[in-house]
Amino acid sequence: MKKFFYPSSVAIFASMKEGKTGYEIIKNMVEGGFKGKIYPISQSSGGKVFQLEVYPDYQDLEFDLAIIAIPEKFIPALLEDLGKKGVPRIVIISAGFSEVGNREGEEAIKDIARKYRMRVIGPNCAGIMNTENNLFTSIEVRALPGGTAFITQSGALGGAVLMMAEELNFGFSKFVSFGNRCDVGEIDLIEYFENDPQTKVIALYIEGLVEGRKFLLQAGKTGLKKPIVAIKAGKSSAGMRATSSHTGSLAGEDKIYDAAFHQAGILRVEGVEEMFDLCRALNYYPKIEGNRIAVITNSGGPAVMAVDKLEELGLNICEPSKILKERLKEMLPPHVSLGNPYDLLAYGEAENFYQVSKAIAPEYDALIAIFVPTSFMDSTKIASALGKVKQEIKIPIFANFMAGRLVKEAAAVLESYGIPNYSTGERCARVIQKIYKYTMRLNNK
Amino acid sequence: MKKFFYPSSVAIFASMKEGKTGYEIIKNMVEGGFKGKIYPISQSSGGKVFQLEVYPDYQDLEFDLAIIAIPEKFIPALLEDLGKKGVPRIVIISAGFSEVGNREGEEAIKDIARKYRMRVIGPNCAGIMNTENNLFTSIEVRALPGGTAFITQSGALGGAVLMMAEELNFGFSKFVSFGNRCDVGEIDLIEYFENDPQTKVIALYIEGLVEGRKFLLQAGKTGLKKPIVAIKAGKSSAGMRATSSHTGSLAGEDKIYDAAFHQAGILRVEGVEEMFDLCRALNYYPKIEGNRIAVITNSGGPAVMAVDKLEELGLNICEPSKILKERLKEMLPPHVSLGNPYDLLAYGEAENFYQVSKAIAPEYDALIAIFVPTSFMDSTKIASALGKVKQEIKIPIFANFMAGRLVKEAAAVLESYGIPNYSTGERCARVIQKIYKYTMRLNNK
Repeated sequence: MKKFFYPSSVAIFASMKEGKTGYEIIKNMVEGGFKGKIYPISQSSGGKVFQLEVYPDYQDLEFDLAIIAIPEKFIPALLEDLGKKGVPRIVIISAGFSEVGNREGEEAIKDIARKYRMRVIGPNCAGIMNTENNLFTSIEVRALPGGTAFITQSGALGGAVLMMAEELNFGFSKFVSFGNRCDVGEIDLIEYFENDPQTKVIALYIEGLVEGRKFLLQAGKTGLKKPIVAIKAGKSSAGMRATSSHTGSLAGEDKIYDAAFHQAGILRVEGVEEMFDLCRALNYYPKIEGNRIAVITNSGGPAVMAVDKLEELGLNICEPSKILKERLKEMLPPHVSLGNPYDLLAYGEAENFYQVSKAIAPEYDALIAIFVPTSFMDSTKIASALGKVKQEIKIPIFANFMAGRLVKEAAAVLESYGIPNYSTGERCARVIQKIYKYTMRLNNK
Repeated sequence: MKKFFYPSSVAIFASMKEGKTGYEIIKNMVEGGFKGKIYPISQSSGGKVFQLEVYPDYQDLEFDLAIIAIPEKFIPALLEDLGKKGVPRIVIISAGFSEVGNREGEEAIKDIARKYRMRVIGPNCAGIMNTENNLFTSIEVRALPGGTAFITQSGALGGAVLMMAEELNFGFSKFVSFGNRCDVGEIDLIEYFENDPQTKVIALYIEGLVEGRKFLLQAGKTGLKKPIVAIKAGKSSAGMRATSSHTGSLAGEDKIYDAAFHQAGILRVEGVEEMFDLCRALNYYPKIEGNRIAVITNSGGPAVMAVDKLEELGLNICEPSKILKERLKEMLPPHVSLGNPYDLLAYGEAENFYQVSKAIAPEYDALIAIFVPTSFMDSTKIASALGKVKQEIKIPIFANFMAGRLVKEAAAVLESYGIPNYSTGERCARVIQKIYKYTMRLNNK
């Protein structure tokens, strides 16, 4: 797999006319700053594209990855040629294969790939990306760098995820859209990402599995080293109708997936928003060793909603010990709550957040800091105080700074300290519960 | 209640020094463009604030609303004076009353208010806003205009909601933080908003009710005219511990709330994100008359997740009739799915979205349009096509344009046609289910 993501030179076979697929891929590769050679190849276009010469012929060029986005009918002949030339890795973006009933076309490219021992990603996919060497062989929005490898069966969903991620400032190590999975699929990719140093978390969108048992074995093995977060779509009868995984005997199938995923240690999520939330946290905190959660805040309402959710999810909002309570009493003005949630009220200044967080940490397994500024407060001071706390305590801290432009800068400060910030305390709660359950399963293995 | 929101002149009693509460309120009032007179009143400050004269004394001034943010100990004497002067409406922002155990202080202001027949909002609140006349008697971010009246017990939660709303471009008719509820509470406000022409939806954040039965009666009555969306926080034992509603006998209490809310026709939501989602839809679509939902899309994955969620929530993703299927076959290229979800694949251009949406509408009760552009597609054309469809069909359309900056302009176009746009199809599904259930209840009354 590694050769797909670290080619020394890449050839792109596609129309290079403005607005066409090839043009957009070259744009992404050039603007993204790919650290290897790029060969735009098109018989019709000629001239230059993003200051790169467009080659009508490729026989004299050396490249170890070919990206193909030409019409389906020309692909078998091109693949034969690339096979003879010894090009080892191919990504076929073009659609028009099994997804529209053209199974023979897909079988044909499979056969050619097998004959020449080429590995193929696609067809009908959105390409691949690697943020380490700025490889962006896709027309989609370029991924920002980060610790999550994202594998998707649906190309359009992949594009949507990249756009949402950009908005959330969420980064990826690698991005792979495998489309119709004529060769490379999620099993090969999970196996590879298990040992990819840039990848801390593996995230997956799948509609159907081809080799269920093998997948679960691989996920079970990889999951011991790195968390795997998965969306399995096509649960409902309408959803299955719309996916290629439709097999005819589907009753209860989703429950089987659910049990199998659980067994293999896969963290199943409902949709992309939960996926982002969970992956963001797992990048910083792969484990939460217990269920005692503290909430510290300057704001009653949001904290109440957070503890409501925590308790609903089975976590323990335990009260401080007597000794801790005594310590807090000395630390804080009268009227300030000495229980969990720790509501500092108007005394929620940086110094109090720092002192109280540090004091309570030894009695808890994770901490949620909820902060609501008024329009003239400097939230970055609170963020820095929490960053300092993080360096001095042993448990994970999650943040919920509310909201919008007033906390944008503070959110960046939190991020720089490795504290994930969420839009609500309830989101923190959901993430904490998932990581805690996952940790318990790992510890019992 | 109306006098609170439509005063001809407002006096603000607070410190007018830069960064202090009075200064920030005057800033909001002036920058917000209040359409009445504003009197900053402070014995210590003097001079001018935002080009308004600061008055040390107020005996010669005429005003019908007083906003008070001076220290607690000076408030009873000021209230007595205002009572004698005949000022009818008071908002007390200052904290330091029952929320910190000072029940006598709160009783004192209650007594004075009763004596002079003044109505009081607060104390310990974040003020009130009216976007019709630009009344912003608060230090919080100014509300944008819109059709939702928001009533909150927690001032900090109110501030957070305003900040989140600004980010989401979500508007309010009125905003009220009632704090400790020494006089005016949610019942008075719901009653007033029932007949406020600017308010289409009433949204509520409450931790505890004082007069439960009266509240439910009022909500039941108002709910027949306008939807009421409510967050009831403090469900958990830790949450109740943190709220003033802690009564000692709490087991099962939340279930009672749930049943009572249901009985009164209140749409209960879990948190602020769901509240925004639901209120946004209710502003455009107060009713959904049946459970047959169609999904139209250019993008498989997101549509599959949407129908998964719709079906999980008990909605009916029914297939088209034979006749409709024949019509669609004539309309669309081969390979395009003729079932629900209607996946237009690469044929998802504006004209196809328009034609197919219009053709299928008569067989459904609501429509979700899911669109994922690639980086060089113009999403606004699809948005306009859907806007045109909306004007020509009778059922609600919901949109899920994914995502981020690539659909920002399109989202504004959708909004201009009155089509609510959500970040995921699952969010559309949740909103549709809630409105459908609410409509069924109303129709059965």
